[in-house]
This record gives sequence, C-alpha cells and structure tokens, in this order.
Amino acid sequence: MTAPAIILIDPQMGENIGAAARAMMNCGLSDLRLVRPRDGWPNPAADAMSSGALGKMPPVQIFDTTEEALSGFHFVLATTARPRDMTKSVFTARAAATELQKRDADNQKTAILFGAERAGLSNDDVALAHGVITIPLNPDFSSLNLGQAVLLTCYEWYQAQDDTPPQSRPSGNSEPATHEQMVELLERLENELEAHHFFRTDGQKPIMIRNLRNMLLRADMTDQETRTFHGIISALTGKKSPLSDK
Amino acid sequence: MTAPAIILIDPQMGENIGAAARAMMNCGLSDLRLVRPRDGWPNPAADAMSSGALGKMPPVQIFDTTEEALSGFHFVLATTARPRDMTKSVFTARAAATELQKRDADNQKTAILFGAERAGLSNDDVALAHGVITIPLNPDFSSLNLGQAVLLTCYEWYQAQDDTPPQSRPSGNSEPATHEQMVELLERLENELEAHHFFRTDGQKPIMIRNLRNMLLRADMTDQETRTFHGIISALTGKKSPLSDK
Repeated sequence: MTAPAIILIDPQMGENIGAAARAMMNCGLSDLRLVRPRDGWPNPAADAMSSGALGKMPPVQIFDTTEEALSGFHFVLATTARPRDMTKSVFTARAAATELQKRDADNQKTAILFGAERAGLSNDDVALAHGVITIPLNPDFSSLNLGQAVLLTCYEWYQAQDDTPPQSRPSGNSEPATHEQMVELLERLENELEAHHFFRTDGQKPIMIRNLRNMLLRADMTDQETRTFHGIISALTGKKSPLSDK
Repeated sequence: MTAPAIILIDPQMGENIGAAARAMMNCGLSDLRLVRPRDGWPNPAADAMSSGALGKMPPVQIFDTTEEALSGFHFVLATTARPRDMTKSVFTARAAATELQKRDADNQKTAILFGAERAGLSNDDVALAHGVITIPLNPDFSSLNLGQAVLLTCYEWYQAQDDTPPQSRPSGNSEPATHEQMVELLERLENELEAHHFFRTDGQKPIMIRNLRNMLLRADMTDQETRTFHGIISALTGKKSPLSDK
C-alpha cells in the first residue's frame, strides 16, 4: 500500500507544517511536499511542532509551482472548505480515502492538495485536480486549521486501509496518464485554441481554461488516450503533434 | 440529538483547551467541562486558540473532581492511548460514536473523558467510565496532542449522525448532458475526424470510435460542456457548429 503524498501550497506558519507532518506520521503517510513555504525550509517551528515526525520521514521536498510538485502523479484530490463553481466530483474525506486506495491498488500515484491557511487553494490549483475533498462539519462553524484538515484527511485514509478490497480499472491494459502527460495535452490544446481565437476575450480566458481542464481531467485518461487526443488535435488543425500521434 | 459532553481532566496548556473547544464546535458539540485546569479559568491562550468557539458555546464548567464533573451522566467513555489492565469494553472512535448515539436515542446523557497532556487519564478516572476509546493509528507513531484527540473523537461523532452522501454528483450549476447531446457531439467529432483523415484505415475506425466514445463519456459532461466542446471543434477546424457555440 503506497500512501498519498500530502502537498501544502503556500503554507505560512511553520507550526502548521509541523502539525501536518505529525498528523501524517500518526496515520502512516510520509511523502510531504511544500510549494513556496513562506518562511523557507528547513523551519525550526515546524521541527518543534512535528514531535519528531519530520525526523522519521523522508526529506520534505520543496517546489516552486504546484505543477512541478505534481509531476509523476496520476490521481490528485484538492481539499476545499467552500464549494467552488466547478464541475468536479466531490468526495467526503471518508469516500476520498476509499477512492485513493482503489487508485493505489491500480498502481496509480496519488496526492492531496491543501491550500494556504486563510485563502485555501486557488481555483487554478483546484482545476489541476481530478476531484475535490470536502470534510463534512458543522455548517455554522466549519473552519479547520491546516494541521487539523491534514489530520482528518489522513485519519480517514488510515481507517480505510484494512478493508478496502483491491479493485482494478474496469477496462483496458493501458497505464493511467501522468500529471505531466495531462498538462502537456491541456497546454497544447489551449495554445491551439488561442491560435484559433477560441477565447473571445482575455477576461474569459482563465475561466474557460479552468472549465476545460475540469472537464478533461474528469475523463481520467490513460496514457494511450492522451496520445489519441493529441491525434485528434493534429487531425483537426492539420499540425503534427510534438509526440508521435496515436 | 444531544451531543456528548467533553471533560478534560487536569489540562495544562490553554492552547489545548482552545483547540479542543474549536474542534467541538466544528463537530456540533458544546458542553465543555474542565477538572482542575492548571492555569485556572478563564484563560486568554484558550480564547485565542478557540477561534471564537468559546464565545459561541455555553460557559465552560469547572470542577474539582472527576466525580463532580460526571454528576448526572449515564454513560461515560474514557480515551486512552495505551491499553490498561482493566476489564472494560474497548471502542474505536468510530464504534464509540455509534454507541454514544444509541445511548442518546435512549435518553442517556453521555460524556467522554480526556486526560492530561502527557500523563493521560489516571486508572481511577478510567475506572469511572463504562468503556474505553482507543483511536486506531500508526502503532509506531501514535501520540496525538490533546486537541487532535478531541478532534478525531468529535469528528467521528459528527460523521455518525451526518447524512451527507459520501460522494455527490459533480458540483456546479449546469445540468448533465443528455444522451442525445452526447451523441450529437460525438458524431460531429467523428465526422470531422473522418474528413481530416484521422482514421488511418477503415478496419481501425470502429475500434477507434469506440475508444473515443469511452473516453469522452467518462468525462460525464454537462450540457454547458458539450457546447464548449462544440466550440473547440469549431475553433480548431474553422467550421461553425450546428449549434450556437459555447
């Protein structure tokens, strides 16, 4: 069983990073990645708060962008406190744990994104995920701090471990697409759409790109299917793909 | 539904009391009792850490002994990190939540005891309880701080009464696409691909069309997204859609 990676985007307080590390170790997770930690890394406040967890896990990895942090992953969930106006599957923390373990049984590398303390994840980061985790809590008082959100998410993953039957992909022999393959495909499509004046106004463009990414990530493509989709773009535009098509 | 009371025995750090209060409010609990809080009460560090939870719940009650704090309760569970040499029912946090709700349905007043930060509950306090809660965690790194232990216990109580479906339909305002809309979209795409010589040989064509349909149907498109996809085809081919695009 390979546990999901936990990726904190723009974390501010070292204490919260340490609490997240401790919660991860409590629940058997050990791949912690930080994107642009405000106070740099290593961070003495994080060490103190981790109760030794940071010393027991592999070195924390630091990245400049969410996309780099997601390199090599196949299935990504984004935690959000508030509903977003995006068409994406929504999982409770418990349902997410089951889904993550199904993906793992299928040899997919999985990751969970957490946003900054106050602001949460940007819509662009959410758009990079295949689905969203929302933890069911008292609607009149639902704000969790970062360490607590990581704890509840990891706790559900640990509780789900024992009785999840392995389940394989319904169809086909092809491998699931990696994050890089999807980004490469999405960027190529977006560039072609730009060149073909698809985005009516510059104001609409970011929203349209987000919607497009949400839609195509939901298809949960295989490696082979990304090549097919490159082939579609090449056929419709008459331009060769950077990959060998199909 | 009456939630269990949370009783902290000999709590030391105000921060932990505040974190416990916040966790309780997150999960719809509001009866917090303290036995011999080290720094007295009220406690500014607790107020700061509670993120407003202490202001939203009834006043915290302070007691000199566990027996006094438990006056009037019918069913009491004690949280313990390590097994005790006592003949007592042991519940996971999840099983405890179900049991507490059964007792509540039978009009029993319920409470959960938590011990001091390092020492935990004394054996005498555990002996006052009807059963013990042990939270299943990584056996090599199972120590939780007090606020986290309260959070996980209260979280399970909230989940046990919650009827949020574990996974909802994709969120967002748009209606799901109808079968006809999908077929119209797929046939238009397939015709364009045919016209652009995408299908290398006639023999391959039926299989490729099947794979394409499988991939795009998995995206579970909304009505709006089918229009976006028509817009993509129009943009890339330079041909207007039979629909008004987007």
